[in-house]
Amino acid sequence: MHGLMQDRPLSLPMLMDGMENRFSRKHVTTTQLNGTVSASYGEVAERIRRLAGVLDHLDVPAGARVGTFGWNSQRHLELYMAVPCTGRILHTINHRLFTEDLAFIVDDAADEVLFVDRSMLDVVRPLLDTCPSVRHVVVMDDGSPTELPSDPRVHDYESLLAAARPVGRFEIADERTAAALCYTSGTTGRPKGVLYDHRSIVLHAMTLLMADTFAIGEDDTVMPVVPMFHVNAWGLPYAALMSGANLVMPGPVMSPERLVRSMEAHGVTFAAAVATVWRGILPHAEDADLSSLRRVVSGGGGLPVSLSRAFHEKVGLPLTSSWGMTETSPLVCSARVPSEQSRSLTGSDRVTALADPGPSTVLCSLRLVAEDGSPVPRDGRHRGELQVAGPTIAAAYFGGSTGASAFTEDGWLRTGDVATIDPLGVVRIVDRTKDLIKSGGEWISSVELENEIMAMPDVLEAAVIAVPDDKWGERPLACVVPVPDSGLTAESVRRHLSGRVAKWWIPEKVAVLDRLPKTASGKFAKAVLRASMISAKS
Amino acid sequence: MHGLMQDRPLSLPMLMDGMENRFSRKHVTTTQLNGTVSASYGEVAERIRRLAGVLDHLDVPAGARVGTFGWNSQRHLELYMAVPCTGRILHTINHRLFTEDLAFIVDDAADEVLFVDRSMLDVVRPLLDTCPSVRHVVVMDDGSPTELPSDPRVHDYESLLAAARPVGRFEIADERTAAALCYTSGTTGRPKGVLYDHRSIVLHAMTLLMADTFAIGEDDTVMPVVPMFHVNAWGLPYAALMSGANLVMPGPVMSPERLVRSMEAHGVTFAAAVATVWRGILPHAEDADLSSLRRVVSGGGGLPVSLSRAFHEKVGLPLTSSWGMTETSPLVCSARVPSEQSRSLTGSDRVTALADPGPSTVLCSLRLVAEDGSPVPRDGRHRGELQVAGPTIAAAYFGGSTGASAFTEDGWLRTGDVATIDPLGVVRIVDRTKDLIKSGGEWISSVELENEIMAMPDVLEAAVIAVPDDKWGERPLACVVPVPDSGLTAESVRRHLSGRVAKWWIPEKVAVLDRLPKTASGKFAKAVLRASMISAKS
Repeated sequence: MHGLMQDRPLSLPMLMDGMENRFSRKHVTTTQLNGTVSASYGEVAERIRRLAGVLDHLDVPAGARVGTFGWNSQRHLELYMAVPCTGRILHTINHRLFTEDLAFIVDDAADEVLFVDRSMLDVVRPLLDTCPSVRHVVVMDDGSPTELPSDPRVHDYESLLAAARPVGRFEIADERTAAALCYTSGTTGRPKGVLYDHRSIVLHAMTLLMADTFAIGEDDTVMPVVPMFHVNAWGLPYAALMSGANLVMPGPVMSPERLVRSMEAHGVTFAAAVATVWRGILPHAEDADLSSLRRVVSGGGGLPVSLSRAFHEKVGLPLTSSWGMTETSPLVCSARVPSEQSRSLTGSDRVTALADPGPSTVLCSLRLVAEDGSPVPRDGRHRGELQVAGPTIAAAYFGGSTGASAFTEDGWLRTGDVATIDPLGVVRIVDRTKDLIKSGGEWISSVELENEIMAMPDVLEAAVIAVPDDKWGERPLACVVPVPDSGLTAESVRRHLSGRVAKWWIPEKVAVLDRLPKTASGKFAKAVLRASMISAKS
Repeated sequence: MHGLMQDRPLSLPMLMDGMENRFSRKHVTTTQLNGTVSASYGEVAERIRRLAGVLDHLDVPAGARVGTFGWNSQRHLELYMAVPCTGRILHTINHRLFTEDLAFIVDDAADEVLFVDRSMLDVVRPLLDTCPSVRHVVVMDDGSPTELPSDPRVHDYESLLAAARPVGRFEIADERTAAALCYTSGTTGRPKGVLYDHRSIVLHAMTLLMADTFAIGEDDTVMPVVPMFHVNAWGLPYAALMSGANLVMPGPVMSPERLVRSMEAHGVTFAAAVATVWRGILPHAEDADLSSLRRVVSGGGGLPVSLSRAFHEKVGLPLTSSWGMTETSPLVCSARVPSEQSRSLTGSDRVTALADPGPSTVLCSLRLVAEDGSPVPRDGRHRGELQVAGPTIAAAYFGGSTGASAFTEDGWLRTGDVATIDPLGVVRIVDRTKDLIKSGGEWISSVELENEIMAMPDVLEAAVIAVPDDKWGERPLACVVPVPDSGLTAESVRRHLSGRVAKWWIPEKVAVLDRLPKTASGKFAKAVLRASMISAKS
């Protein structure tokens, strides 16, 4: 028997009610290259309705992908709402990827329109010739002097908005309708798209409002430093609109010094960024008045305890860790000291505890699985692959042809991370099953780097491993066995990679070795290699 | 295009994961007539699985209604989970209703099994003969000496549990599956059932965890004083299990003094009750150490500012109001001072503001509608009928034949309350469109009372109105016009009602009048009557 409750979908148009009624005087403030702009949610809602009219005007059909190359800004926020609220799919793109990957992603998504911050135009220019799906490019002028391409497909955001006919009513009848698309590099070579639906985005935002997660509320001022092209800025823009919190958007002005100044000027209470960014902010935090901050979240990779301690000393509150993936919306775990430990864990012990990912949010189920598939006890000691299930977790990749191995037969996501879970539910990540390097919050695929290096005629074998790095968390280290007497040098490897992979993927260190350790089955024994290289370094 | 997220239902079995893993050492403590019992959530989860086995053993089919007559207790909590987690429908029944209404409700729901606290057995005894649907009565021994009926249908809860075969896996594939049923007296005579589904219960519990709602978290100890037969105890048991908060259940021991002692002994941080109960607690709060309390919620009727002020003075924190109905799961509004006002509203002004229902939760949409159907502005001055929509709001009544007028053509619930909404979303209830009296948090139908009184041969006309009452919030006042020279007295009216309606419905005051004011269309002008009677009193 079915219940008799109203059939109201969990969909993004729900958020318009708050923006237009309860929270119409709350605001989003964006730092641009040419100054700071602020708008009330009432005004933003009006612009969202006009932007919806722009999409109609550009003849973008329901279900079509609308790509964005944008910093964190009010306009990007408008796209976050207008695109999915009208049944189109918001496809946020990481402009820092290598051109070849960008072309692949835009092609794979078949983006019909690209919305591009003017300061990112140079990244998009090469795509105009190679991506036939792109019918329109809408430039968002962020004060950059970058020249506009002379191409009939190029439009100006504000001109289109001014001329648009606002859309009065948004309706997404089926909450499983696709809303947003993000690509992740994942384990294997090609980036894979994760297709979120309205339901998953609304449920995810709801969890961010919970007291034991981020506790985002109407009296918060939220600063997503984490980019809006990075898993929906961890859902923070939607959480802010849902709760009525103010938003502070750093725009293209991402220098640590300016970020700190912005937090201070706008009374930011909640900020989230990858550890690398927090490390950069630290030296500037000392002289600033950051007393408005109530919570600072680090995510997108391990949080070094030393960094959190230093932050605690200088700013007066610890960084709190979190854990998630593009495939998980992303938030799965949010650091918290369980009540049973809150008396015993004080001071510096507490800071240390908050550097672990912590317990899962209420919608995520976790399990640990041993290599042979058997369950691993939650005793805080035994380790296993962390697997996740829930309505905010991906079931497959966009396109569907690749990445099936990321999902178990019973529908759980294999995270590729090896973890322990203690009896209070606190998760600790202890290793990775996948060959990926997390540098500054972004993935670098060791497999891709290896393929490129092994393509050199002078290379016999190559293995790329992650090594700890103070600034970036991890950096790739290439271990190369040359063809005897070929005269291969570290520099020639680096030169070869330049132009073949994104600049920031290129390893600073290339070790030229006689041989690589192998497992019994003939695979590179990366754990052995990592241990020997790291101990060799120290 | 559909998103590619996992198809995981929002259903109560989700909560078992937390009980069995993360929160297995958190606990529920129940005061019984014969002492206090406590059990960990791990133990309770085990008993829930056994109780599921009991339902199988009693051959209760999926979709069947399982009635409960119970105080707030661990066993009632077990029923809250085991019944819906196995696809049956939990039907909580208010034992304080009149026998005739109870018989109607059990019949209308066609309850197959009744779970009854031993101290409530006398209420259930008459139903055994009149309600043919009831195949089993399971007695939960709460230490009361009440005699057991000698009836083959009667079983003992603990004996059944001990013999049961635990159910290992709960699965509710469709989140719209009915989970719970509560009856409300509503406007017209007969009680009407509201049929919640798994989705609505889970979503409602999620909102209680939000920072701007009740902010219930793992470090809370929650005491639902509001009965578990009263709209799922406002969702608090489910919110506690979802968040891992401890629960303190008062059982049948509901004297204000004992409630205060319980809060003190168990370090209760969050408690919720109707205003009448808070009023009773007030004199006992003074000598108690209630410093563990962080939030006290009043609901189920208006919260007098004077009461909240007195509570603030004696206990150090204000009562916070809330608003909802059986039809709304129930929480729609939860008192909160919006950030724009939090600087200006301090001290006693803040206490006053928190006595209003406040802003709505994130899943509820509100609107005000004038009598002619036109929209009313949210300016804090204009008033209109409050209408509500959302996934936690009823779309129809159980059985479906009655109460259709409670819903608009476009699917909103007419609440029957007249309200204003200010630009920050704060709701204030200013009047009622319906003829109901809210006494001690429970509805009394003036229509039913009038019908009973007008059935007296000596009565010409009768109108029952609500008058303010210090203890109960409101009490009914019967205004009666006798047949001339019939010699009708107030006492004869009260005597007539005794045995025809529940004892607590009987008006303390019966005014014998010459005539009743009427509207142009000939209806009783209750507003005029109310005004004249209240001014006559003072």
